[in-house]
Amino acid sequence: MKAQMTNQMNGLDLNQLYETVDLLKNDPKLAQFEFRARNRWVSGGHNRSEIDGFYGAGREDKSRPKPFVFDNGEPPVLLGNNEGMNPVEFVLHALAGCVTTTTVLHAAARGIKIEAISTELEGDVDIQKLVGLSDTLPGGYREIRVKMNIKADCTDEELDELCNYAWSRSPVFGTITNPVPIKMERVKS
Amino acid sequence: MKAQMTNQMNGLDLNQLYETVDLLKNDPKLAQFEFRARNRWVSGGHNRSEIDGFYGAGREDKSRPKPFVFDNGEPPVLLGNNEGMNPVEFVLHALAGCVTTTTVLHAAARGIKIEAISTELEGDVDIQKLVGLSDTLPGGYREIRVKMNIKADCTDEELDELCNYAWSRSPVFGTITNPVPIKMERVKS
Repeated sequence: MKAQMTNQMNGLDLNQLYETVDLLKNDPKLAQFEFRARNRWVSGGHNRSEIDGFYGAGREDKSRPKPFVFDNGEPPVLLGNNEGMNPVEFVLHALAGCVTTTTVLHAAARGIKIEAISTELEGDVDIQKLVGLSDTLPGGYREIRVKMNIKADCTDEELDELCNYAWSRSPVFGTITNPVPIKMERVKS
Repeated sequence: MKAQMTNQMNGLDLNQLYETVDLLKNDPKLAQFEFRARNRWVSGGHNRSEIDGFYGAGREDKSRPKPFVFDNGEPPVLLGNNEGMNPVEFVLHALAGCVTTTTVLHAAARGIKIEAISTELEGDVDIQKLVGLSDTLPGGYREIRVKMNIKADCTDEELDELCNYAWSRSPVFGTITNPVPIKMERVKS
């Protein structure tokens, strides 16, 4: 999946993009990815993840010489000391990034040059289920609102078409808007 | 929501915990939180979020003097340069943190002293929908697997009970396992 010549659009290598799509067309197994994380509790609402390898495009990825390390924390009103952003805020960060990248990718495939994208997100959580005061209320986000401002070298109609096509293809968008099974297991070492 | 005396369990202030639960019981509106993020595209699959304020417990939170800043990136096989962890990996980080914190919180409420928690996560994504090769396959995670190892001063049966009670109360768990509406809007400045 390396391109021979550089042909950039929106910071993406178009040759590599088309080659990747051709490879996936010929062998859909290459589209299967397994992402992974390890996490360790520190104290209270503070814990730390390490993320490095994953499986994708038919092989183990070895491109990261050392793991990414990120802390979750909680603000004082949620019994923490802002040791890090809290987990539901990381979900908004992930969603913002994923719909942005998906938009940029399909813009590149259409020959639309993106000049700027900025996004504002809001999401509503009721913590009654979290603290045990309700068993029936939704425990997660009830709704998330995303406002995206895009500047590009095309018409408003083309941008609307791009967004209609691209946004719902974002993997994080798909994870949040659809029910995804989580298999939780307690293990002993 | 400040406790008068410190009474720590698992790094959480139990007085503050009980006081918070009492306040929410008396006025469930205080359980409504609105979390927020801003994101700006950098190039290709690289973009950056800033997160600071939120609304919760009946007021705007001002506890963070400066925003948390996080970058999304992509590995080379997904057309990036590992400018950051990718968005679906941030979802695993958020999930790990949220189920861990929820477990620690309810352990504290039950008087269970946690010594250690470590978690391993895996999740499967098929990128055919992302790149436009399928309209029907799920675009997000198909399944996420979480293995949690807990060391605590209680019996296995008590730990199983704790996990059965706590895990599904995690807001990120609820966001992923239930369909959450996302209202996407393109705005112009």
